[in-house]
Amino acid sequence: MEEKEIPKAVISRLPKYYRYLGILMDEGVERVSSADLSRHMHATASQIRQDLNHFGGFGQQGYGYNVKYLYESIGKILGLDRGYTMIIVGAGRIGMAVASYTRFEKRGFKVIGIFDRRPENHRGENAGGIEVRGMDELPAFLRQNKPDIAALTMPSEGAAMVTPILIEGGVKGIWNFSHMDLEVPEDVTIQDVHLSESLMELGYRMNHPSGGQKTSGRRQES
Amino acid sequence: MEEKEIPKAVISRLPKYYRYLGILMDEGVERVSSADLSRHMHATASQIRQDLNHFGGFGQQGYGYNVKYLYESIGKILGLDRGYTMIIVGAGRIGMAVASYTRFEKRGFKVIGIFDRRPENHRGENAGGIEVRGMDELPAFLRQNKPDIAALTMPSEGAAMVTPILIEGGVKGIWNFSHMDLEVPEDVTIQDVHLSESLMELGYRMNHPSGGQKTSGRRQES
Repeated sequence: MEEKEIPKAVISRLPKYYRYLGILMDEGVERVSSADLSRHMHATASQIRQDLNHFGGFGQQGYGYNVKYLYESIGKILGLDRGYTMIIVGAGRIGMAVASYTRFEKRGFKVIGIFDRRPENHRGENAGGIEVRGMDELPAFLRQNKPDIAALTMPSEGAAMVTPILIEGGVKGIWNFSHMDLEVPEDVTIQDVHLSESLMELGYRMNHPSGGQKTSGRRQES
Repeated sequence: MEEKEIPKAVISRLPKYYRYLGILMDEGVERVSSADLSRHMHATASQIRQDLNHFGGFGQQGYGYNVKYLYESIGKILGLDRGYTMIIVGAGRIGMAVASYTRFEKRGFKVIGIFDRRPENHRGENAGGIEVRGMDELPAFLRQNKPDIAALTMPSEGAAMVTPILIEGGVKGIWNFSHMDLEVPEDVTIQDVHLSESLMELGYRMNHPSGGQKTSGRRQES
């Protein structure tokens, strides 16, 4: 597929398309109309067609989109076909939740290690069958296993300290649950997750009915 | 303050402004320039000024913004000054992480109850000092305490079953961590959190260096 400049807003909707198409696949659905996608994506059918046109128009007027083809094409665009290995740094509640989330592996993200300052507190815990290792084992693990991604699920100070070790170890993507603005080289990608921002946005939206949404309720992703 | 139509994109940045301004407040900083905000928000200074102009221009050229005033004004816009009560439905790892996150209370969201199908599995667990109650207690709790928000941190099937009980009990905002598209009345606001979509976006961005970001690393919020 040719590489075109795809608008950021479109990219950020792709995972949602992918997720919904995955559900349709599981249900054995073979075709989907832009109207149906529209309902589930909470966007107009015309918006849906515009979005999908960025990838060379998989649909046919009056016929709809081939679910499997669209699912696989978007998966390729998202790079999910290549697969990623991921480690989790910080075995607190969020870290362990991420570790035991089988859905990520289904999407091509395989957890291969979990690290914590106090691994002794996690003996015998089930985190997708992976034992929690000590931080001292992290550098050697990085050298041997070359994980693509690190999920940083520890407090801010710890996150800032561990980041250089991750970079040195060749990690190219950081999924940052800490509240730290991490400084990393140009070739490293950071995706911040700020749950408190999502909650504040909910508060705002509860106080400011926007109207214009066609579905029941007022919905937004974060 | 007058109510104007504020673009969605601006609203979604407000919590981030608020968070950063909170950090500056904690550090005792009194004024901030749009250039400094720009660095931390990963946006141009002109974008920052445009954003803040939506709220009546708190800044002065060459002088900067009053941190406390801006923090409080954005807090009011976000409705954080009014305060929200929240319950958590589902005491799994994510639910317990949300429950013990003191940062939310600092932002005006107070957790007043946690519910689970199997409260007996959580006896003695510390979730911000709140005990985990059984689902059977939920309807009476809603009647008595009228929480504003419910964080739904349980699997999809359970989330769909419990939603009508929440609505019936007067909950006006649902912070939805489940993978279910919930159907709710018009006056109920849903904020979906899909961690797997955030992770997929990271994967995409690792494979598609966009350039154009002026900060170290490539960063995006979700």
